[in-house]
Amino acid sequence: MAQKPGIPKGTRDFNPEQVAKRNYIFNTIRQAFETFGFQAIETPSFENSSTLMGKYGDEGDRLIFKILNSGDYLTKANVEAYNKKDSTKLTASISEKALRYDLTVPFARYVVQHQNEIEFPFKRYQIQPVWRADRPQKGRFREFYQCDADVVGSTSLWQEVEFIQLYDAVFSALQLDGVTIKINNRKILSGIAEVIGASDKLIDFTVALDKLDKIGEEKVKEEMRSKGISEAGIQALQPLFSLSGSFESQIDSLKSILSASEEGTKGIEELAFINEAISELGLTTATLQLDVTLARGLNYYTGAIFEVAAPKSINIGSIGGGGRYDDLTGIFGLKDVSGVGISFGLDRIYLVLEELNVFPETVSKHVEVLFINFGDKEALFGLKAIKALRQAGIHAELFPDAAKMKKQMNHANKRNIPFVVLVGEEEINSNSFTLKNMISGEQFKLSLEELISCVHSFK
Amino acid sequence: MAQKPGIPKGTRDFNPEQVAKRNYIFNTIRQAFETFGFQAIETPSFENSSTLMGKYGDEGDRLIFKILNSGDYLTKANVEAYNKKDSTKLTASISEKALRYDLTVPFARYVVQHQNEIEFPFKRYQIQPVWRADRPQKGRFREFYQCDADVVGSTSLWQEVEFIQLYDAVFSALQLDGVTIKINNRKILSGIAEVIGASDKLIDFTVALDKLDKIGEEKVKEEMRSKGISEAGIQALQPLFSLSGSFESQIDSLKSILSASEEGTKGIEELAFINEAISELGLTTATLQLDVTLARGLNYYTGAIFEVAAPKSINIGSIGGGGRYDDLTGIFGLKDVSGVGISFGLDRIYLVLEELNVFPETVSKHVEVLFINFGDKEALFGLKAIKALRQAGIHAELFPDAAKMKKQMNHANKRNIPFVVLVGEEEINSNSFTLKNMISGEQFKLSLEELISCVHSFK
Repeated sequence: MAQKPGIPKGTRDFNPEQVAKRNYIFNTIRQAFETFGFQAIETPSFENSSTLMGKYGDEGDRLIFKILNSGDYLTKANVEAYNKKDSTKLTASISEKALRYDLTVPFARYVVQHQNEIEFPFKRYQIQPVWRADRPQKGRFREFYQCDADVVGSTSLWQEVEFIQLYDAVFSALQLDGVTIKINNRKILSGIAEVIGASDKLIDFTVALDKLDKIGEEKVKEEMRSKGISEAGIQALQPLFSLSGSFESQIDSLKSILSASEEGTKGIEELAFINEAISELGLTTATLQLDVTLARGLNYYTGAIFEVAAPKSINIGSIGGGGRYDDLTGIFGLKDVSGVGISFGLDRIYLVLEELNVFPETVSKHVEVLFINFGDKEALFGLKAIKALRQAGIHAELFPDAAKMKKQMNHANKRNIPFVVLVGEEEINSNSFTLKNMISGEQFKLSLEELISCVHSFK
Repeated sequence: MAQKPGIPKGTRDFNPEQVAKRNYIFNTIRQAFETFGFQAIETPSFENSSTLMGKYGDEGDRLIFKILNSGDYLTKANVEAYNKKDSTKLTASISEKALRYDLTVPFARYVVQHQNEIEFPFKRYQIQPVWRADRPQKGRFREFYQCDADVVGSTSLWQEVEFIQLYDAVFSALQLDGVTIKINNRKILSGIAEVIGASDKLIDFTVALDKLDKIGEEKVKEEMRSKGISEAGIQALQPLFSLSGSFESQIDSLKSILSASEEGTKGIEELAFINEAISELGLTTATLQLDVTLARGLNYYTGAIFEVAAPKSINIGSIGGGGRYDDLTGIFGLKDVSGVGISFGLDRIYLVLEELNVFPETVSKHVEVLFINFGDKEALFGLKAIKALRQAGIHAELFPDAAKMKKQMNHANKRNIPFVVLVGEEEINSNSFTLKNMISGEQFKLSLEELISCVHSFK
């Protein structure tokens, strides 16, 4: 019996329109990456398990898709784990490879492995799918693309400046006006923890602070108390909760809060430098905003932290993020290589462009001309013209069968093909083509040259 | 201790130059596909195992990469297989998903699953990676791209004609002149088997005939004898071994050999139709050649069989192939959907373009201008110009650190960046830029407008 076809949960088929729209976003990002001097690399879809495991925490380890060894894999199975039916312990002995979980760890592996071929600072971008065995839900998939740009091998803050410009360039090119690029700095969070006497509770403190938007000031304070942060410390935080106004005025408030912390003061200097440069250079459609509650991936970032929010009218999470990490390649044995990078969230950007209705109409380049097939003689005459149209860059095709006229015209309509060409005995004898505009219904009898220029003029 | 980084055997990292060259090939193929009216779809990297298993024969089943179920997968393990340590039997109970083995079966699954949204005839293309647990060797990888174009839903031979034109268009655009498009027809092979009384030995017969080029006439005959094909049958084959000359004269010889076979005669008519159309339409750089020994994937193809050979100077296998299959979607329950398609072998095409040295010089779009960094003030002045250059489509960047001049110039040289811009106190005061041509060594003092047009003129 035939199987009922389906695909694994959390995965997707993309039809031609979806592929075209996704490629429009990819190409826009790619073009900006290249204009900014980034170069593409690609890494394998699966890595040795040892490269990935232990890099994303216990939760990450569980969400990594493992590939079963080929052949008689049980001969190498860990005997103890096998006898105990211990899935977790058994895995390492029957699976040596795993699907990429993100692009960052494979990039770190790439940099270390190829360090002698790379000229640093190395500006690389990578647009490839990643896989996570997450529970699928709306907007969360088990296979999705990441679009990352990173620079490794320099601590210069000009790179943070350039990444903000890059975000602005991409979202402006996508006509996604009004995004907010939020910025924070790990050193500021460390500084705050320091001045409130909670340096040992940095994670608890930032996790609570990160929720300010969602749960409000009182609940954040409650959580901090429950994590053992002192009342005096929470009091000292008070100015933070009411931080508002321009980037500059927030910087001023932070200066007074953090004057006692060397690290915090360094963080403020970095933010001020970046903000001044961006003010001088200007952004096209995006806004830069200081957000001291921003903490994403704190264990990972060591300096700047970025996150991009969609225009306020759209209710969706962040559409991009990134930051500075000072020891990415250390896990693979290459010390002291600072990196900074950003990422674009393809699926969410797609949803935002759909909702704002700003995909260009021409994004999906349909067939422009369909030649109606009246029989082999007419088809051959038509194919000669089609060859010339294609050489002129026009997407043209012949209906393959000499089916009923109505069926062929319906086919053109269903596929939104704007022009149809009719070639019969008369056209062959006069070496001409009857062009029908499927929208207006108008018909013209044209020479081949006229046909080409007429279709071109409608592009 | 730090891990020594590496990647699984049979997989590859691609550096920026390799990515650029691969994308050049992909983009050329993609553009031709679209000009010919094909539309892109994409399917998930992994499918339900039931979709893939049993579709490629026993060997294929073994070469499919299986993904281990997540979580405590052993709770669902087949008890009998587990107790017997039977790897093959156990797999189905601990692995539900598998990596795509080719693009054809997922396409068939797609067509059946989405049949109500598809307007037939459906011309789709798909350029995505596939994975096979094959033994890696020179030119054979465990992860590689396939580039397929297929039409389903029509039996018209005009499609075979168009695919030959498509091959010619792609290889001409790649400046890969002199390829040979070999064509055969399953019906001719069936007809020959019929007239020599070996219809029940069609596979044995074609497998032997397929080796004619490699092992010669006598060995082929030997193999046929060993497979039980009669001496009279082998005698009747004699004209086949000496088949040569033009497409037309080969057709004439085949007519006499196959006059007694209805199916064989049908195959000849199909080939003759295709050849006549191609003669009328003309090919740009490729040659169409009849090759009755061509049998690739015989179990699969029902009509035309295609294979593309690289120019004779290059010693490499086929660089493309395809054919007509009459019941692709039957395995998923949709009967009577004829399909025909072709595929391009990306990795081999890459090797051929390298060997012939016909990758365009501009294929890898490097950074064109590097601004030397003399300090923050100069860097900011430079970044304003860089912004304007990028808006003019020029790939420009700032060296991130105010390192020694020599180090920065070396960086430009190592990355083959053709222009360097020097901005110091004097340039800032006169609002000008010193452009250095890194090849000729010439230097010019220019305004921003002059700088842009000067770099543009070298593109």
